[in-house]
Amino acid sequence: MEETYLQSVKYDGEKLYILDQTKLPQVTEFLEIDNIEDVWDAIKQLKVRGAPAIGIAAAYGLVLGIKDSPENDFDSFYKFFKEKEDYLATSRPTAVNLFWALKRMNRRTKAESSKPVKEIKRLLEEEAHLIRQEDENVCSSIGQNALSLFEDGMTVLTHCNAGGIATARYGTALAPIYLAKERGMDIKVYADETRPLLQGARLTAWELMQAGIDVTLITDSMAAMVMQQGKVQAVIVGCDRVAANGDVANKIGTYGVALLAKAHNIPFYVAAPLSTIDLETKTGDEIPIEERAAEEITAGFGKSTAPEGVKVFNPAFDVTPHHLITAIITEKGIMRGNYSEELARLFEK
Amino acid sequence: MEETYLQSVKYDGEKLYILDQTKLPQVTEFLEIDNIEDVWDAIKQLKVRGAPAIGIAAAYGLVLGIKDSPENDFDSFYKFFKEKEDYLATSRPTAVNLFWALKRMNRRTKAESSKPVKEIKRLLEEEAHLIRQEDENVCSSIGQNALSLFEDGMTVLTHCNAGGIATARYGTALAPIYLAKERGMDIKVYADETRPLLQGARLTAWELMQAGIDVTLITDSMAAMVMQQGKVQAVIVGCDRVAANGDVANKIGTYGVALLAKAHNIPFYVAAPLSTIDLETKTGDEIPIEERAAEEITAGFGKSTAPEGVKVFNPAFDVTPHHLITAIITEKGIMRGNYSEELARLFEK
Repeated sequence: MEETYLQSVKYDGEKLYILDQTKLPQVTEFLEIDNIEDVWDAIKQLKVRGAPAIGIAAAYGLVLGIKDSPENDFDSFYKFFKEKEDYLATSRPTAVNLFWALKRMNRRTKAESSKPVKEIKRLLEEEAHLIRQEDENVCSSIGQNALSLFEDGMTVLTHCNAGGIATARYGTALAPIYLAKERGMDIKVYADETRPLLQGARLTAWELMQAGIDVTLITDSMAAMVMQQGKVQAVIVGCDRVAANGDVANKIGTYGVALLAKAHNIPFYVAAPLSTIDLETKTGDEIPIEERAAEEITAGFGKSTAPEGVKVFNPAFDVTPHHLITAIITEKGIMRGNYSEELARLFEK
Repeated sequence: MEETYLQSVKYDGEKLYILDQTKLPQVTEFLEIDNIEDVWDAIKQLKVRGAPAIGIAAAYGLVLGIKDSPENDFDSFYKFFKEKEDYLATSRPTAVNLFWALKRMNRRTKAESSKPVKEIKRLLEEEAHLIRQEDENVCSSIGQNALSLFEDGMTVLTHCNAGGIATARYGTALAPIYLAKERGMDIKVYADETRPLLQGARLTAWELMQAGIDVTLITDSMAAMVMQQGKVQAVIVGCDRVAANGDVANKIGTYGVALLAKAHNIPFYVAAPLSTIDLETKTGDEIPIEERAAEEITAGFGKSTAPEGVKVFNPAFDVTPHHLITAIITEKGIMRGNYSEELARLFEK
């Protein structure tokens, strides 16, 4: 299977291959990287994006960074390692998954301190592979759970990009689509272009086309008509954060799509890895919504498309209340309806 | 009042001034035209757009065209006139209002055939003014009727551009906003950018800013959140066609906005001059929906923003069923709910 799909971050034991997402969808180019500085640059320049993919790139970045470390004693090795870790941490200080992956690599290093440095290096490469593999497993489990809700011949609508190139493989919302394809099922997709940053047009449409999946691109304003005409039988989206009551923060426009789905009696599904569930946040009201630069709307296409100085409201996310969500799909199973109880139970064990 | 607002087509007895809408919103430029060829060009090149504005420009175009006609007898004058009429008709053969205005000018010419040619020319200039004035009256009446539904301090959301620059003055959906401004009321506007062609960003935001009206630009995908946060208290849009049962065809995205308004208990109003009401069309199902070029979505801003060869669905309009429409506002009054009867009654008299 390895060669039949596109892996956005991949290490072959010598080089790290990173899909340059800033060049999509016009150019499909993999950076071939053999040093930590180029990994730092790829993260900094958003060439690799998506929380899981960034974490994976950082872990492999450390593997590259310690290649030429001293190997005589653990203390000098650890000092060397820590410098590389701190260096990579400066590439994108707001990326939570970056720090999560670096800390995990650090813990493994310390845990193996009694072993020869050469062996520790091998184990760290193993740890990076593990980080990647675990993410793939999470996505694959979400995909399998979600796929149980779909049927052969269905068409689903998605918003933004919760796809394979943001993760180790499969993605979250797109995972059931890829799994269906592997199993010979025919599931078609409508992709909202997702203004202002067009992740749907640039990334979702692109990666589905790469995989040979039938995808139709529409503007966000066409989703209602697509539903009215009976062209889609389900909606599935990813998420940034799930609150304890099941309210979901996701890319701006998600809430509108959820309302439209409700109005047409179309199920609305959210694919949510456990890592996005935050029981500390009681409801969606507590989720702060970032407002971004006006230029994303007024000049997002390389040329000015709005009057100079126009007032703009540009929230990056919106909150979909839990009552509009038919099911939340995690790697541990499907939750329906009574989210407060079901989400709490997930973390009890 | 003449100078306090922007008139997209204006004749001063010598020259025709046409706002070049292809240069908006970056450049505000009026073409100064003293010959029929330049009017033909302005219509052909979409420098003037909006059904009423095109009709008005064509009528004045004829006035310019016959300036240097023979004046000795009616027959030679009429021959000259007819040549000019046929010439202008070729500028945009799909624009219904263009033909409507040319035919009206022709009827007036024939009706005045007993008068001296010099006098006929004066009467044709009068007829062109009348066409413009009647459109302004229609818009003003729509505005007054619509304004009775609004309150001082309100904020309304609109989609696409049903504004003053498409008509003689005031527009249709924007008419109550301009009237409110004239009366010292404070009504604010959220403008959907209206993908794919961005009429909301390029035209609506622009013309409202020109008039000093508080307008905030959002992407279409933000309308739901704006409603969720209680930022707007009404929606008003224009329309392309109203069917006998009150179903309304309008710019793609309108149907979605109507559903979102319904979900938030926000009234959804349609401003519809009688000229858009078509009792021959029984329901919205009978309205053919034009599909437009994929490039409007994939490369609408001078650069490609989607994968090459991606499948695209690009309907220009959608149909909003009558049950989502709180009121249809015409120059003759406000209709609510029982549209089949009310629309039929409008045309009985």
